[in-house]
Amino acid sequence: MTDFAEKAARNLARVREKKPLVHNITNYVVMNSTANALLSMGASPVMAHAANEVEEMVAIAGALVLNIGTLNDDWVAGMLRAAGKAGAMGKPIVLDPVGAGATQLRTVSARALIAEATPAVIRGNASEVLALGEGAAGTKGVDAIHSVDAAAGAARTLAREIGTVLAITGPEDLVTDGRRTVRVQNGHPLMSMVTGTGCMATAVTGAFLAVDEDPLRAAATALAYFGLAGEVASGQASAPGSYAVSLIDALFTITPEKLRAGVRIKEDR
Amino acid sequence: MTDFAEKAARNLARVREKKPLVHNITNYVVMNSTANALLSMGASPVMAHAANEVEEMVAIAGALVLNIGTLNDDWVAGMLRAAGKAGAMGKPIVLDPVGAGATQLRTVSARALIAEATPAVIRGNASEVLALGEGAAGTKGVDAIHSVDAAAGAARTLAREIGTVLAITGPEDLVTDGRRTVRVQNGHPLMSMVTGTGCMATAVTGAFLAVDEDPLRAAATALAYFGLAGEVASGQASAPGSYAVSLIDALFTITPEKLRAGVRIKEDR
Amino acid sequence: MTDFAEKAARNLARVREKKPLVHNITNYVVMNSTANALLSMGASPVMAHAANEVEEMVAIAGALVLNIGTLNDDWVAGMLRAAGKAGAMGKPIVLDPVGAGATQLRTVSARALIAEATPAVIRGNASEVLALGEGAAGTKGVDAIHSVDAAAGAARTLAREIGTVLAITGPEDLVTDGRRTVRVQNGHPLMSMVTGTGCMATAVTGAFLAVDEDPLRAAATALAYFGLAGEVASGQASAPGSYAVSLIDALFTITPEKLRAGVRIKEDR
Repeated sequence: MTDFAEKAARNLARVREKKPLVHNITNYVVMNSTANALLSMGASPVMAHAANEVEEMVAIAGALVLNIGTLNDDWVAGMLRAAGKAGAMGKPIVLDPVGAGATQLRTVSARALIAEATPAVIRGNASEVLALGEGAAGTKGVDAIHSVDAAAGAARTLAREIGTVLAITGPEDLVTDGRRTVRVQNGHPLMSMVTGTGCMATAVTGAFLAVDEDPLRAAATALAYFGLAGEVASGQASAPGSYAVSLIDALFTITPEKLRAGVRIKEDR
Repeated sequence: MTDFAEKAARNLARVREKKPLVHNITNYVVMNSTANALLSMGASPVMAHAANEVEEMVAIAGALVLNIGTLNDDWVAGMLRAAGKAGAMGKPIVLDPVGAGATQLRTVSARALIAEATPAVIRGNASEVLALGEGAAGTKGVDAIHSVDAAAGAARTLAREIGTVLAITGPEDLVTDGRRTVRVQNGHPLMSMVTGTGCMATAVTGAFLAVDEDPLRAAATALAYFGLAGEVASGQASAPGSYAVSLIDALFTITPEKLRAGVRIKEDR
Repeated sequence: MTDFAEKAARNLARVREKKPLVHNITNYVVMNSTANALLSMGASPVMAHAANEVEEMVAIAGALVLNIGTLNDDWVAGMLRAAGKAGAMGKPIVLDPVGAGATQLRTVSARALIAEATPAVIRGNASEVLALGEGAAGTKGVDAIHSVDAAAGAARTLAREIGTVLAITGPEDLVTDGRRTVRVQNGHPLMSMVTGTGCMATAVTGAFLAVDEDPLRAAATALAYFGLAGEVASGQASAPGSYAVSLIDALFTITPEKLRAGVRIKEDR
C-alpha cells in the first residue's frame, strides 16, 4: 500500500526544488488564478495556445495542462497539436473536460484530445468525466450532477477503456486507474463558491505529474494538497472573495511537513 | 407603486434557491470577476462564446449576458447566434455595450445585437447607452461622460424606441422602460476604482432576470443589491485591491433581509 | 543629473490629475490585474485588440501597451495595426516581449512590432529583452535566466541599435537608452510570486509615458513607483494571494510625497 502522505510531501518538495515549467492551454476565466496557484505552490506556469507555437512550448515544459472551459475551433487545433507533441515526447498530459456533456463541441473536443494522445490524468466532476464515456449526458453547466459514489463503478470501467487515471472531484474525490482506487477526503465546501477551483486542482495535478512518474499517485496527492489548502483557507476566511485569496496563500504556506500531516487519502480494498 | 425592497429580497432568495444558470459571453477582463460575483450571489455561471456551441448553452440557461468589452468579429458572430436563440426561446438577455460610441466596431455590434433580439435590459454608463441611439458620440474609453440626469430624457425616448429597459449606472443609477423611471441610490465611489464593476452589475442583473419576469424590476433590484454590496464592502476596505475582495464577500453575506432593509430605490412621478 | 525622485512624484501626480487613457493589447492572464493596477494608480485603462477597431482606440489614447504573453496571428495583426497608428500619431508605445526567445512566434512577433513602430520603451526580463537582439536564445518560459548585471553591456548596445529605452527588470532593474543608464532598486522578492507583476510594471510605464515626454525617465520612475508599491505591500502581506491584493492597494495609497521619499534610483557614471 502506497504511503500517500509521504509521497505527497515528497512531490511538493520536488516541485519547490525543481520548479517545473507547466504549460497550460486553459480557459479565459481561470488563466490568472491557475497561474497564481502554480506560482504559489512553487511551479513555473506558462500559457500559450497558438497552434504555431505550442509544440515549442511543450518541448521545454515538464507537463501539459489542457482545459476546455472556453473553447473554439482554433483553440482545439492548438490543443491537438500540443497533445500530439506531448504524446510523442512522453510528457504527461492532464485534461480538464470542463462542461463535457453540456455541448457537442466540448464532448467531441474532449474525446478528440484523448484520441490524439492519452492523458496521464483526466480531472473533472462526475458528470463531465462520465460524459466522456457514455455519450452526451445532460449537464447543468459545469456543476456536478452525478455523485462521486454513484460514479465509482463506471469510472473504473472508463479508466480501463481509456487507459488513464480518472480524478473525479466532489465532496470526496475519487481517483482510479481502473484497478486501484483511492478516495481523497481533503477539501472544504467553500471551494465550490470560487470559480476555477476545479481548474486550479487540475493545474496543481499537472505540476505533480512533472515530478512523479506514477499518475495515480500524482493525482491523489495533488488533490490532497489542494484540498488541504482549502481547509487551511477556511480558517482565514468565510466568504468567497477573501477565501479565494486565502486559498492562494495556503498553497504557499503549506510545507511538505504540514502536508504529510494533513493528507487524508484512503485506498479502496 | 412597486415595493422594490420586498421584490429585491424575493429575487435574491429565489436566486439562492434556484441557482439559475447564467450564460455569459463577456469580455476577457472580467470573466473571472463576473463568474465569482455570480457564484457568490448564489447563481451558476457558465462562459461559452463559440458560434458552434452557444445555442446549446442558451438552451439550458436561465438568462444570457452579452458584454462587448473585448470584441472581434468571431465573438460578434457567437453573440448574434446566442441572441437569436435566446430570442426564439424567450429567454431574457441583458446587454452591456462596453465602449459603444468609442469605436465603430462596438457601436455597430451593439446595434446589431439589439436588432437580432431585443434585450430585456441594456446596462451601461450614460455615454455608452446614449451612443446606441444618437450615433457615434465621442467617449473617453469606458468612462461616463454624460451625467445620468442629463441623460434621463433621452433615455426614456430611446427605451421606448428599442422596447427595452435601459439601466444607466453612475453616482445614481437610472432605470427606465420609457414609461416608468426609477432611481437607484445604492453604491459607493470606490466601485469605480475596480475594473469590471459595471460588468458585474450586468451579470447580477442577468441572474435576477432569470427569476423575475419584470425586467425593470429585475434591473432596479439587481443594481440596488450590487450597490448595497459596494456599501458593505466600504466598511471592510478602503483601497481598490482589498475593496474588490470585500465586494465579492458582500454579495455572499448580504441576506434577503439585509437587502430589504438596505434598498434605496425611488420611483419618478 | 536628473532628480528622479522629484520627477517620479510629478509623474504620479500628473497621472492622477489627467487620468490618461492607456490602451492595452495584452495577454489574457493579466488583463484584469493590469486594468486594476492602472485604475488604482489613477489612469484610465481600456482593452481592445481587434484589427478593425484598434486604430480608433489608439487615436483617443495617451499611450499604447503591447504585451505578447498569449499570442496568435490575429492578435499580432491587431498589434501591428495599433503600433502603426501610434507611430503615425506620435503616441508612445511600451512593448512587453513576454516569452521572447522561448518560441519563434514570440521572438518574430516582437521584432515585427519593433520594426513597425519603434517603442518608446521595451520592458522585460533580461532573457526576453536580449532575445530581441541576439536571435533565439533558450528561455525557461517567462522566467529570467540571464542576470541584469550580465545583460547591462548587451542592453546598451541593443538600445542604441533599436533606438529605444530598454527596461530590464529583476532584483535590481536596469533602464538604458544606450547612453544613459540607471538602476532602480525598489521592489520586493514576493513580486515574482504573483503572476503578471512584470506586465503590470509595463502597464504602469505606459501611464507614465502618457504624461512624461522623456521615455527613460518615465520608465525609471514607473519602475520605482511599482517597486515601492511592492515594498509597501510586503508590510501588509507575506503570502502571494494577499500580497497581490495589497500590491493593488499600495498603488492607490502611495502619494506623490511618499513616492518622492521612497524612490531608489541610481544613475551609472
